Amino acid sequence: MSAGSGTREDLLGRVFLARVIEPGDEVGGRWVRELGVEEVVRRLRTGAPALPGVSAERWAGLVARAGRAEPERDLDAAREAGTRFVCPGDAEWPGQLDDLGDGRPTGLWVRGRPGLRMWALRSVAVVGARACTEYGAHVAASLASGLAERGWVVVSGGAYGIDGAAHRGALAAGGATVAVLACGVDRPYPRGHTALINRIAEQGLVVGELPPGDHPTPSRFILRNRVIAALTRGTVVVEAACRSGSLATARAARRLGRFTMGVPGPVTSALSAGVHELLRAEALLVTDAAEVVELVGDIGELAPPRRGPVLPLDLLHPAARQVLAALPGGRAADVDEIARDARTTRDDAIARLYELRALGYVERHGDGWKLTRQALTSVRTGRGTS
Amino acid sequence: MSAGSGTREDLLGRVFLARVIEPGDEVGGRWVRELGVEEVVRRLRTGAPALPGVSAERWAGLVARAGRAEPERDLDAAREAGTRFVCPGDAEWPGQLDDLGDGRPTGLWVRGRPGLRMWALRSVAVVGARACTEYGAHVAASLASGLAERGWVVVSGGAYGIDGAAHRGALAAGGATVAVLACGVDRPYPRGHTALINRIAEQGLVVGELPPGDHPTPSRFILRNRVIAALTRGTVVVEAACRSGSLATARAARRLGRFTMGVPGPVTSALSAGVHELLRAEALLVTDAAEVVELVGDIGELAPPRRGPVLPLDLLHPAARQVLAALPGGRAADVDEIARDARTTRDDAIARLYELRALGYVERHGDGWKLTRQALTSVRTGRGTS
Repeated sequence: MSAGSGTREDLLGRVFLARVIEPGDEVGGRWVRELGVEEVVRRLRTGAPALPGVSAERWAGLVARAGRAEPERDLDAAREAGTRFVCPGDAEWPGQLDDLGDGRPTGLWVRGRPGLRMWALRSVAVVGARACTEYGAHVAASLASGLAERGWVVVSGGAYGIDGAAHRGALAAGGATVAVLACGVDRPYPRGHTALINRIAEQGLVVGELPPGDHPTPSRFILRNRVIAALTRGTVVVEAACRSGSLATARAARRLGRFTMGVPGPVTSALSAGVHELLRAEALLVTDAAEVVELVGDIGELAPPRRGPVLPLDLLHPAARQVLAALPGGRAADVDEIARDARTTRDDAIARLYELRALGYVERHGDGWKLTRQALTSVRTGRGTS
Repeated sequence: MSAGSGTREDLLGRVFLARVIEPGDEVGGRWVRELGVEEVVRRLRTGAPALPGVSAERWAGLVARAGRAEPERDLDAAREAGTRFVCPGDAEWPGQLDDLGDGRPTGLWVRGRPGLRMWALRSVAVVGARACTEYGAHVAASLASGLAERGWVVVSGGAYGIDGAAHRGALAAGGATVAVLACGVDRPYPRGHTALINRIAEQGLVVGELPPGDHPTPSRFILRNRVIAALTRGTVVVEAACRSGSLATARAARRLGRFTMGVPGPVTSALSAGVHELLRAEALLVTDAAEVVELVGDIGELAPPRRGPVLPLDLLHPAARQVLAALPGGRAADVDEIARDARTTRDDAIARLYELRALGYVERHGDGWKLTRQALTSVRTGRGTS
C-alpha cells in the first residue's frame, strides 16, 4: 500500500511532510499512522479527498503549503550544508522518540558526524532560563562538564543562558553535546549563538524538526521541548522562573517516564522559584553530575561496568571500528593519541568514542578513554576475525 | 507504690532525678517507667539495691551524684529566678514529648509566662548552622517572622547563627518564640546571647532539661535536639553543612513522625550541602513560611478556620480570659490596644494571644489579632455566663 520505511519514496514523503505539517501536530501524526506516508502525501498534493480532523479552511492552507513543498530541493540543499534527514525506521532513528505517539517528529534534520541514536542512548538534557544568573550559568556549565567527563551526552536547546552554558561546559570538557533547535538546523538561532552552534555541529550534533530555512516561533519553541524531553534519559532544570518554558520540558519528561530533576538555588532568587516549585511537586533534587548519573545511569553505574558490549563488533560503523582499534589494550589514552592512531580528526574521534561508550565498548578514565574490561576480550577476538 | 504524678513528692523526686540522670538516658527512663519515681529516688539515695542495666562503676557515680542533689534548694533557686519545673502529668506538660519513650525528659525547667503545652501545640522548629551565611540568617529571620505572623510559635536552640536569627525574626514580628537550651535555663548559653535569651524569657519561653547552673556539653547539645524535634509539629533546617547537628534534629523529627523540612540554597555553598543531602533523602523542600504552614497546619489551614475553640471557655486561665474579653467583636485590634483593655503588659498579652490562638479562639490579622468566626459566638455566650 505505501512505500516501506527506509525507501527513497518514504524519505522524500517525510521531507515533504516536514514542510507541510507543523512539529507536534498530532492530527497529522494520526494520518501518517493510519494511512501511511505515501497516501497522506498524495492527498495533500492533490487536495482531495480531504483528510479528517481539520476544518475546510485549515485543509486548504495545508494543501497550499503542499503546493510549495520541494522535498528534492530540500534534501539537496541540506546535503550541501552537511545535513541529513533521519526517519523513523532508519538505523539512526532514536527509538525513544516513538514515546511521543502521534506527536512523534515526521523525521529529524541532523547536522554533525556522530550517530544520533547511539548518542541519545546515554544523554541527559540540561535546560533552564535564558536570562539566567551567574550562579545558574556556573552550575549549568559544571554540571555539563561533569556529565561529559562521565561519558554522558548533554542535550540542550542552544538558547542564551543556561542552554548555552550547558553546551559550552560539555564542549570544554572535550565532551559530547547535542543542540535541538526550534528552527532549520542551517540557520542557527539565536544569531548570537551562531559560532557556538556551528562548533556543536563540528564536535557534536545539531538537530531539529523544521526544514532548512525555517524560523522559530513561540509555539515551535514549546514543541521543540518535547523532543529534548523524549530524546534523553532525564531532564535537569538549572534555573527557571515560575512559568518558564524549561519547566514545560521537565513536565514533558515526567509524562514520558523520564527522570525529572532540578538544581536548587537561593530561595531569594526569582530564577530559582520555578525550579523549587518543580522540586516540591514532581522533580528530584540534584546538586552535581554524580547525583544525576546515579539517577539516570543503569543500576551499578557508579560501580565498575558489569555488562559487555551490546552490539556485535561487525555491526559497528567502520569509522567506529577504526577508533576502537586505536585504543591501547591495558591503559587509558587521550583523544589526540586515539585520533592519531585511528587516522582521523579529533572531533571525529570524540564522536566515535561516545558512540562506543553508549555500546559499552569504552569508558572515560580521567581525561582519557580506555576499553571496558568486558570489551577487551571481544575486541581482541573481533580484531582476529574481522 | 509511688507518689502520684502532680504531688509534691513526685515533683521533688523528678527535680532530684533531673540532677542525677543525664538528659535522654533511656536506662534511667526505663527505671522510672518500671519502678516509679519514688522507688528510683530511694535506691539512688541509699545506693542499694543497684538498679539494672548499668556497670558497678557507673552506679557508684550515679549514687555519688545523688548524694550531692538538693531538690528543695534547686526548686527554691529556680522559683527566685522565675523558673518552674514542669513534669509529665502536669497540666502544662506537652504530651507529645511522650513520643520520646524512655528518652522522655524527667521534667522541663521553664522560664516565661506562657503555658508551654499550649504554645507547643502550634509550634515549628527552625534550626541550622551556627556559622551561617548572610543568606541563611536572612532566610531564617524571614521564615520565623512569617511563621509568627501566621500565629505559629518558633522553637529553636538559642545558638548563634540560624537559631538566633530565627528567634529574632519571631520577636521582631511581635511573635512567639521558645528557646530550648542544653544547659540550665538560668545561665544563658552562648554568653553572647544573654540579652537575646533574657528577652525570649520575657516575651516567650526558655526551656531546658538541665537543672539550674548546669553547663552544656557536646552530648547535651545533641540530646537537646531531640526535645526540639519532639516538641514541635515539624523541623525546618535552614543551613547546615554535611554532618551538622541540626541534621540530627531533622532526623529525630522524622523518626518521631514530625514533618522534616529544608530550605534549599546555592549548590555552590557548603552550608547548604547538608540541607540538600537531607532534601534528597527524607525532607520536604520549603521556601517560605506559607509552605511550612501548608504542611504542618491542619487540613484547611490556608482556608478560613472551620473549627471552633477546642477548650471550653471556663477552663481557660483567668489571665487568658481577660485578654480574650479585651478583643473587640467585629474587627482586629493591635497588641497594645488589647493589652491596655485587658489591663496587662504587652508581653503578657502576646503570650495569652498565642495560647488563645492554639485553642482556636483568636487569629492573626495583618499586624493585629481578632476573634475567629466560630469563637465569636462562644465568647459572647461565655461573657454572659462567666
